[in-house]
Amino acid sequence: MARAHWGCCPWLVLLCACAWGHPKPADLGGQDVRNCSTNPPYLPVTVVNTTVSLTALRQQMQTQNLSAYIIPDTDAHMNEYIGQHDERRAWITGFTGSAGTAVVTMKKAAVWTDSRYWTQAERQMDCNWELHKEVGTTPIVTWLLTEIPAGGCVGFDPFLLSIDTWESYNLALQGSNRQLVSITTNLVDLVWGSERPPVPNQPIYALQEAFTGSTWQEKVSGVRSQMQKHQKAPTAVLLSALEETAWLFNLRASDIPYNPFFYSYTLLTDSSIRLFANKSRFSSEILSYLNSSCTGPMCVQIEDYSQVRDSIQAYALGDVRIWIGTSYTMYGIYEVIPKEKLVTDTYSPVMMTKAVKNSKEQALLKASHVRDAVAVIRYLVWLEKNVPKGTVDEFSGAELVDKFRGEEQFSSGPSFETISASGLNAALAHYSPTKELNRKLSSDEMYLLDSGGQYWDGTTDITRTVHWGTPSAFQKEAYTRVLIGNIDLSRLIFPAATSGRMVEAFARRALWDAGLNYGHGTGHGIGNFLCVHEWPVGFQSNNIAMAKGMFTSIEPGYYKDGEFGIRLEDVALVVEAKTKYPGSYLTFEVVSFVPYDRNLIDVSLLSPEHLQYLNRYYQTIREKVGPELQRRQLLEEFKWLQQHTEPLAARAPDTASWASMLVVSTLAILIWSV
Amino acid sequence: MARAHWGCCPWLVLLCACAWGHPKPADLGGQDVRNCSTNPPYLPVTVVNTTVSLTALRQQMQTQNLSAYIIPDTDAHMNEYIGQHDERRAWITGFTGSAGTAVVTMKKAAVWTDSRYWTQAERQMDCNWELHKEVGTTPIVTWLLTEIPAGGCVGFDPFLLSIDTWESYNLALQGSNRQLVSITTNLVDLVWGSERPPVPNQPIYALQEAFTGSTWQEKVSGVRSQMQKHQKAPTAVLLSALEETAWLFNLRASDIPYNPFFYSYTLLTDSSIRLFANKSRFSSEILSYLNSSCTGPMCVQIEDYSQVRDSIQAYALGDVRIWIGTSYTMYGIYEVIPKEKLVTDTYSPVMMTKAVKNSKEQALLKASHVRDAVAVIRYLVWLEKNVPKGTVDEFSGAELVDKFRGEEQFSSGPSFETISASGLNAALAHYSPTKELNRKLSSDEMYLLDSGGQYWDGTTDITRTVHWGTPSAFQKEAYTRVLIGNIDLSRLIFPAATSGRMVEAFARRALWDAGLNYGHGTGHGIGNFLCVHEWPVGFQSNNIAMAKGMFTSIEPGYYKDGEFGIRLEDVALVVEAKTKYPGSYLTFEVVSFVPYDRNLIDVSLLSPEHLQYLNRYYQTIREKVGPELQRRQLLEEFKWLQQHTEPLAARAPDTASWASMLVVSTLAILIWSV
Repeated sequence: MARAHWGCCPWLVLLCACAWGHPKPADLGGQDVRNCSTNPPYLPVTVVNTTVSLTALRQQMQTQNLSAYIIPDTDAHMNEYIGQHDERRAWITGFTGSAGTAVVTMKKAAVWTDSRYWTQAERQMDCNWELHKEVGTTPIVTWLLTEIPAGGCVGFDPFLLSIDTWESYNLALQGSNRQLVSITTNLVDLVWGSERPPVPNQPIYALQEAFTGSTWQEKVSGVRSQMQKHQKAPTAVLLSALEETAWLFNLRASDIPYNPFFYSYTLLTDSSIRLFANKSRFSSEILSYLNSSCTGPMCVQIEDYSQVRDSIQAYALGDVRIWIGTSYTMYGIYEVIPKEKLVTDTYSPVMMTKAVKNSKEQALLKASHVRDAVAVIRYLVWLEKNVPKGTVDEFSGAELVDKFRGEEQFSSGPSFETISASGLNAALAHYSPTKELNRKLSSDEMYLLDSGGQYWDGTTDITRTVHWGTPSAFQKEAYTRVLIGNIDLSRLIFPAATSGRMVEAFARRALWDAGLNYGHGTGHGIGNFLCVHEWPVGFQSNNIAMAKGMFTSIEPGYYKDGEFGIRLEDVALVVEAKTKYPGSYLTFEVVSFVPYDRNLIDVSLLSPEHLQYLNRYYQTIREKVGPELQRRQLLEEFKWLQQHTEPLAARAPDTASWASMLVVSTLAILIWSV
Repeated sequence: MARAHWGCCPWLVLLCACAWGHPKPADLGGQDVRNCSTNPPYLPVTVVNTTVSLTALRQQMQTQNLSAYIIPDTDAHMNEYIGQHDERRAWITGFTGSAGTAVVTMKKAAVWTDSRYWTQAERQMDCNWELHKEVGTTPIVTWLLTEIPAGGCVGFDPFLLSIDTWESYNLALQGSNRQLVSITTNLVDLVWGSERPPVPNQPIYALQEAFTGSTWQEKVSGVRSQMQKHQKAPTAVLLSALEETAWLFNLRASDIPYNPFFYSYTLLTDSSIRLFANKSRFSSEILSYLNSSCTGPMCVQIEDYSQVRDSIQAYALGDVRIWIGTSYTMYGIYEVIPKEKLVTDTYSPVMMTKAVKNSKEQALLKASHVRDAVAVIRYLVWLEKNVPKGTVDEFSGAELVDKFRGEEQFSSGPSFETISASGLNAALAHYSPTKELNRKLSSDEMYLLDSGGQYWDGTTDITRTVHWGTPSAFQKEAYTRVLIGNIDLSRLIFPAATSGRMVEAFARRALWDAGLNYGHGTGHGIGNFLCVHEWPVGFQSNNIAMAKGMFTSIEPGYYKDGEFGIRLEDVALVVEAKTKYPGSYLTFEVVSFVPYDRNLIDVSLLSPEHLQYLNRYYQTIREKVGPELQRRQLLEEFKWLQQHTEPLAARAPDTASWASMLVVSTLAILIWSV
């Protein structure tokens, strides 16, 4: 799945939004947008009246002596998907797009968002709000400098600004005689009041031992051992990404859409384990599982989620050094730790350890991909029969594949919102159909399905593109070039510790060769029942180097605006490569097991090496998925699988050219044998 | 040429030293090194006695109230090659290696350098000096904190620390109660006194119009236009790299080895042009060429080189904004400009403009490469005849190729110290032979020649590796894989504005495939009678994106420690690519015209595409160099060229396998035609 939010954490949203080259937004029901220049202004019915809440917010700002207040689009953990009670920017503005920052002054209110959301913002915001078609902190600060007086204070919730974002605001405001003011009580929440959706409160559960790579005690010991080896000798690690705490303790919940996490922090010190979460959510079994009744170094003390800032501030009074991952720790934590007591790395040791799956985690992730392939194959077989009837649309299709996944063992829902896109919709970067707005699937169009599942043993993500009728020559060529890119990267042999960025162009070369390309990244890490976009693995410049045991998606694509979209995404394990001369080399082992669409492959574009790779992949699919289909009596699907994994032969050239090749061969023999 | 110093400026020295994976140093005459643990210490004759100069330096430090003094290895312009009068670290320590920082306290003195130079340092330094086998500022500061008392001052010459280096010292010392103190009078120079070699004082000359891409007036107007377009509206650009001033005014001199530059700065403002250099070096013709008698916006005012700091400080008092390239501007300039008056980019607009050659500059650079090929071919032909006689060694060979280049039209000497390396010496990263220490060339060994010339029209750099006898199968395989890497990158089609880093792995893939690799970068920019390593073009992560009109070297290699080294380096122009579907795509046009060694090519490893590329390249060489050889009656060389550019045919497999292929072909025809 290639989306705006790479990684569990959306800190890359801008990068990806840009990479897509400002694609057009999905059709949101026409161009019925506000017009604030008429008197009275024209407002579509989709607009939210924000006058009352803005007035209330300005009262709160006055109480705090603020000239401006920043309302970001994040939550306190930089989650990729955020809960309804964290949708502050959406609530105060009316604009529900996933990316965009609001700033309110005593006289004006404004939103900054990227091109994907301009129309949506004009349909959802009333005339209290200016729309600024820019991103980043610089244009916001430029605007602030003209809008607020010298000496003015700019308030923000320190738990909603990352360290980097805070630094960029701070730098831009330096010397301007305007001051950033950190206010821990969120002013929007005060105004939102009782209307604010409640914070999720479902029970937190432990994974069964069968689904974990190590016990939480082993993981804790491993992190402590890294603390000891670190040259700056940190006395504690602070975990502020939800996936870090979920991974460390093998605990899960469902606070966040698509991610099985719960709101939490962990302060793991050399002598204690402090888990900050809502205490009431732990059953007595879980409390016992966590040794929470004792106070030794292997006992987990549960403290209230709301106490994290105060507790860290208190801990930081001692002779301590706190290790944090700076990419996803919020300023609200950072500002209470004295600089000389901080040990900073881009990613915490938990993030780094989690990135490399041990052999049990590898086996679990692979097993989930076999079952996931069954669900996708069932859906593809079903589509093949039903699309020609004209009764399938993108939305009902998405529902069905989600249902098939739900029927698989250990299923825990989809791992992201299914992208089910037919024809021209597949060329849109962030398209997902709705019940109201969708397109019928047809044998005359290509269809792109990008979907994945959460299973107790693993998280999956796969994209296939199919055509049930007669694709055009260009569609076949583009599809085959995307496929070649997938193969060229998947079979690449590269030195250990090579960064993904250095090799991702192998997924593009076959497209570049013809003047084609795609505007998104080439892949992302994936977790064991964790994030579908798991940092820090992948092919972007801020991903860490590849290592044995990592899993990454490989997903080149091609998008023809207004016509069709192609993406072929597999998940692959990084494994050791055997090379002719000894050395530490790696390659990929693909663990997604759904055949590509033969109807779209132009075999004449494939080299013998591509064909060999493809036929070996087919063989693997047969071996992995075939028995599973048979075991479950899915005989129609089994037959389909056999058909779609028949070895491909080199294209048969016409007889004339074979004859000429024969002549050449014969001549060559004659020449060279003399 | 792949060296430690990428770019005219050596700010990447550490990166490259690391990339080479700590190769063993060249043999410097055995392991006759100092032993400071005996009493009296053992000192080889190569050691320099530094007691007197150290005492004098400490007196100067005392006068300035310093606890420590830093002596870097750079000059004030971060030149790749530095003049003798700037060899302060070498003079005070005795250690002449090109990389290494010295620090002197009142009691101790120490040098930090990388593994290339450890033995050399132990042979050249007396026991006044500790040797620290580390690099970077962190170990230096760690040492300083134990060696100097709290409250102590660490002095440095602000013209010898880049902004980045100063920042890293400053950051590491923060909160330590030790202070960095900028001292503009260099203390080593005070001690060095009259023994210090004089600053070069040769006349500065203007390039003839035939050898320039634009007049200096056009270049000045172009930079001013970029100032106007810049959103921060700088009022001036400060040029502190020598190549910037040389390029801007089309002026040259010979202050620096291998680089035709003169010590200078330029402050180009919106209304004036101020050139800081030694006034006495300009003839009346040059003064007139520069319009130096007037004071208008297109008149060049010459000010004394030593005045630059004061003049910039005075200029910065006004309502101005000064644009600098932060990668190569020294702290001594930076510290006198108030932060709010700085406009910073990694590279100045001059660096960015110079990186893209206009059509005349392209033609000039290409022409210099044709003549350069003649010199190299003359040398290769001569070697072919003389190596079997056993009379050629690495040093005399290097002298000869330099001589042949010197006989070419417009020659202005070599563009770097010729790397002429036979057998195992070619596996060393920084090997150059000397008159005393060199190896005989032999038909039993491979020979690597990495050399280049300065010509009035262009700078060249080419590497060829040859074998006059019977190479081993492994040597042929490694050579052919290096060649494939060169071809795969050279013929790659990629989108405009792709960074070199994203595509350089294409030069490595064929090696990786077999478990082989090389430890240096894949290429660097090159100038028109400027730097042989011209920033900011190339394939490293800090190079800028590729654009039409840039020139870069492409130079994969393979090094077998203790046995042989292979490198195949060409210079290539970035040109527009014609793609099947329209788009903005680029590719490379190789402008080095010396055939590869057929004796080392294993044709069976080449694909039909590689053969096609190679044969087209051969054809180009014949067209470009053939007529030049004929015109100059170099008939033996012409004949050699024809032989070495005969089209290569696909390898003839043995008859048995051809027969079986015939059977397969026939069967295929029978099968597919039914």
